[in-house]
Amino acid sequence: MIARLLPCVGWLRRYDADLFRSDALAAVIVTIMLIPQSLAYALLAGLPPQVGLYASMLPLLGYALFGSSNALAVGPVAVVSLMTAAAVGEIAATGTPEYVGAALALALLSGVFLVGMGLLRLGFLASLLSHPVISGFITASGLIIAASQLKHILGIEASGHTLLDLGGSLANGIGEANLPTLAIGVAATVFLFWVRTWLKPVLVRLGLGAQLADTMAKAGPIAAVVATILVVDLLALDAEGVKVVGAIPQGLPPIALPPVDLELWRDLIPSAVLISVVGFVESVSVAQTLAAKRRERIQPDRELLGLGAANIAAAVGGGYPVTGGFARSVVNFDAGARTPLAGVLTAAGIGLTALLLTPLFHQLPKATLAATIVVAVLSLVDIGAMKRTWVYSKTDFAAMAATILTVLVAGVEAGVVAGVGLSLVLFLTRSARPHMAVVGQVPGTHHFRNIKRHEVITSPTVLSVRVDESLFFANVRWLEDRLYDMAVADPSIRDVVLICSAVNEIDASALESLEALIDRLHAAGIDFHLSEVKGPVMDRLKRSDFFAHLSGGVYLSQHDALADLDPETTCAAEGALRPARSAAAVTV
Amino acid sequence: MIARLLPCVGWLRRYDADLFRSDALAAVIVTIMLIPQSLAYALLAGLPPQVGLYASMLPLLGYALFGSSNALAVGPVAVVSLMTAAAVGEIAATGTPEYVGAALALALLSGVFLVGMGLLRLGFLASLLSHPVISGFITASGLIIAASQLKHILGIEASGHTLLDLGGSLANGIGEANLPTLAIGVAATVFLFWVRTWLKPVLVRLGLGAQLADTMAKAGPIAAVVATILVVDLLALDAEGVKVVGAIPQGLPPIALPPVDLELWRDLIPSAVLISVVGFVESVSVAQTLAAKRRERIQPDRELLGLGAANIAAAVGGGYPVTGGFARSVVNFDAGARTPLAGVLTAAGIGLTALLLTPLFHQLPKATLAATIVVAVLSLVDIGAMKRTWVYSKTDFAAMAATILTVLVAGVEAGVVAGVGLSLVLFLTRSARPHMAVVGQVPGTHHFRNIKRHEVITSPTVLSVRVDESLFFANVRWLEDRLYDMAVADPSIRDVVLICSAVNEIDASALESLEALIDRLHAAGIDFHLSEVKGPVMDRLKRSDFFAHLSGGVYLSQHDALADLDPETTCAAEGALRPARSAAAVTV
Repeated sequence: MIARLLPCVGWLRRYDADLFRSDALAAVIVTIMLIPQSLAYALLAGLPPQVGLYASMLPLLGYALFGSSNALAVGPVAVVSLMTAAAVGEIAATGTPEYVGAALALALLSGVFLVGMGLLRLGFLASLLSHPVISGFITASGLIIAASQLKHILGIEASGHTLLDLGGSLANGIGEANLPTLAIGVAATVFLFWVRTWLKPVLVRLGLGAQLADTMAKAGPIAAVVATILVVDLLALDAEGVKVVGAIPQGLPPIALPPVDLELWRDLIPSAVLISVVGFVESVSVAQTLAAKRRERIQPDRELLGLGAANIAAAVGGGYPVTGGFARSVVNFDAGARTPLAGVLTAAGIGLTALLLTPLFHQLPKATLAATIVVAVLSLVDIGAMKRTWVYSKTDFAAMAATILTVLVAGVEAGVVAGVGLSLVLFLTRSARPHMAVVGQVPGTHHFRNIKRHEVITSPTVLSVRVDESLFFANVRWLEDRLYDMAVADPSIRDVVLICSAVNEIDASALESLEALIDRLHAAGIDFHLSEVKGPVMDRLKRSDFFAHLSGGVYLSQHDALADLDPETTCAAEGALRPARSAAAVTV
Repeated sequence: MIARLLPCVGWLRRYDADLFRSDALAAVIVTIMLIPQSLAYALLAGLPPQVGLYASMLPLLGYALFGSSNALAVGPVAVVSLMTAAAVGEIAATGTPEYVGAALALALLSGVFLVGMGLLRLGFLASLLSHPVISGFITASGLIIAASQLKHILGIEASGHTLLDLGGSLANGIGEANLPTLAIGVAATVFLFWVRTWLKPVLVRLGLGAQLADTMAKAGPIAAVVATILVVDLLALDAEGVKVVGAIPQGLPPIALPPVDLELWRDLIPSAVLISVVGFVESVSVAQTLAAKRRERIQPDRELLGLGAANIAAAVGGGYPVTGGFARSVVNFDAGARTPLAGVLTAAGIGLTALLLTPLFHQLPKATLAATIVVAVLSLVDIGAMKRTWVYSKTDFAAMAATILTVLVAGVEAGVVAGVGLSLVLFLTRSARPHMAVVGQVPGTHHFRNIKRHEVITSPTVLSVRVDESLFFANVRWLEDRLYDMAVADPSIRDVVLICSAVNEIDASALESLEALIDRLHAAGIDFHLSEVKGPVMDRLKRSDFFAHLSGGVYLSQHDALADLDPETTCAAEGALRPARSAAAVTV
């Protein structure tokens, strides 16, 4: 029982020293990677740097208690940070306590929304988003985020949440670029790109083990951080206009309730919903990919609860909205994390950092953090996926392109709405039609098959149609019109039989539509019959006024229906059966 | 070509005196009915009375040019009027020119949105709303509207857009009720209820023809209008506090552009979208019902264009948002309207009224108009539908009840959003799973059938699954998990064959999911095969990297697949075939 509520009880029960060694190693590596990331994403979100560290502590505990993935690393991520900046920037000015408070409230609302979705078991909804739309959204967000960081690399002021605004703002300010900042920013960016793509092969060639080489390559950002801190400090570049992180308060996060302000909450709800959707979709797809590699399984509804708990923890622990990050989770997985305890240990590592190391980051240039972000998000830009989609399906590509354009032109929030909307429109247009087939009798048998795919005998006066799905409001209108058109198109048709062998349910809308169809057909002198209706469906029909409308009969089998409505054709069709039967008799 | 753009060209070409007589008679009756309705709905929308008349003129011409229904009567309707009041009331104070201007802008935006939807051919989306949700919405809106009119019947001030607000506001003011107003209001309400339910049978019993009796019953509201004008005028009740309509400017509507104010438009867009959705759904369901009675057909995309044109006409012709009204269209239909020219003639009738008769309405009590509205909307409250839905399907009833509650508690706009949202959630949960079946070989044949419904032979090492739908993003995740679970559940399974005989398309998301499934199965030592893949699907798969993933083969037929993967079982299954074949040979 408790294990069902708290998945952690399951893995804690079988925890041992071996698992701990794996988890601890992963935690050390993820901590090293997470320190610059936390500071950088806080910068992206417009928040003080320590908020990034706080968002990497309590939320990890929250997820470890309720989440279902063994490898997911929760914390601040790029897209959610950008969306936080956009949402909170509407409400308060950067640098004010109101700004920080609004970010806390946003995390709380997002957490409550995610938990609510989880309790309603709506996790499956995430799998209903079109992949090309998601991929387009991530690519375009990566571009926007990279563009938003250029100001830190140039050392100028700029703002905006769309490519147009950002571009204009950067073009205006580019004349005032600060040269030392630019030098640090460009050097850090080039270094990080080099580390990402070339360092590992070089280290391996130098004789290091692949595992160790990989780990060292992942430590690239921390190397850039250390190197640029030293450069700024030694050359006193902060006096030359290089913006640095400055004083970060030492200590653990303040535990407090986020501001309770109904008006603020109401303003933030739409953004909280969008952030939750994006965070959940990103996180669940990472978790699924990693779980599949180890043949484990994640449960989307558990993930909702886990991420919800993480965000509520962020809200009371001085953070801002968090979710499972892609790069970080892959590192966690590769480094050998076996249970969510790796996340708890990572939180402890970040906690130690916040307690002891923050004075070291005083001289850290913002340009270095921006370079970390640029390199991280440009790896999200997936031109290959765009090409593959273009070649494979123009419809899917159109949806993808529309999402990308919306994000670039109108911003990330509009992009989410457009992406979800496009997925829905694609979904509705594709599934508004039930799969159906006109059937005829296979000569010499009692079987009825699709006339398009089998040699069958059809009655000249009876139209027999099989529907291969349950009937409900969204598909039945089309069926109603199709059946009516087919029946009246051939003036010799006197009866229509709907074969319900695959109909598990007829909802109230479908019932109305069927009744309307029966009345329309009746007015055209055509009777309507059902065959092979399942028991539960029949029981419900009996509770309605359906049989007051039904002009024809209900037959146990399609063969019964045809034998009753057109005995002549049935006899002819079974004529073919008789010789075979007598032949069989001869054999016996 | 022109006939395709303008449906009116079609019916104008075959227009004759006979059609004209029918249309003209219908127009006279609808005009008589529309005069009090137009004034009343303008009152409901918070607009001056002449705006109601204007909204019943140009919009009818707009619809006649582009619409596809022969019986639909366009003009102000109750729910849309209430929604207009709610939307415009947020932006301007009743009685100001800004209020009237905002209503014009709302009509323009709604018209443009409808035309856009029509050009994108999205008319089918309306058929994707659940009927119980629509019915719940209409019932609850009827209750809200009736409640909103009680203030006019009581002669007090009250406001609010939810049942709670309205109730509280009425309870506060009830002490100041104006007795003469109350007397007129109650008398008019009782009279109109009596006319609606009892007058026709009484007249028929008195020896009138059913048709004439019906027409006279429809003229009930105009009788109430005339009678109460006389009472107020003779007793000078306006001096006793009975609120009257007052001076209505005489003349035709001013033709002018609605205010061009981007900020105003942006504020109105969400309401315009909701009003369009509600107006379209109401209108198209009326038009469909009436068209079916005469075995005609309406085209939802044409209806979008027709209603869009009507609203744009309303915006330039001094009106406010309009749509096809239920009661009015039924009257138009029953009175014999045969083409949209009936609407044009009705517009002319209203035009004459606006030119000549408006001074007569000076002493018309608002209480009479309120009584007209109350009686009209209470007929929308469909308790029977609630009962039927409750008996037939608890799920549908839950969706209906949620919609009703949302409208009553949070207002009509929230109700639309909740209704559409609920329909979508119902839709998604019901169609996220493709219909699929595990199949086996029918002994003695090359046929493969559902193991649950036929006596078939299955291979111990090959799992054969038929999917009965195209594969796309929304249904393929579930399929991926199901197939994987089924394959690994039985350790003796070595091969999975997916029979694609009903798969007409595999979209880019489904392709990714299939590739992921193949990789997962491969890791578990299971090969994946396809059979009976259609030509176009195969062509597209060849353009992708699918075959780099595919661990197994692609077979022309399921029989080929089985014969190759498990020849032993196939032989055994066909062993049954051989005696039959030799028997056939004996016959020959």
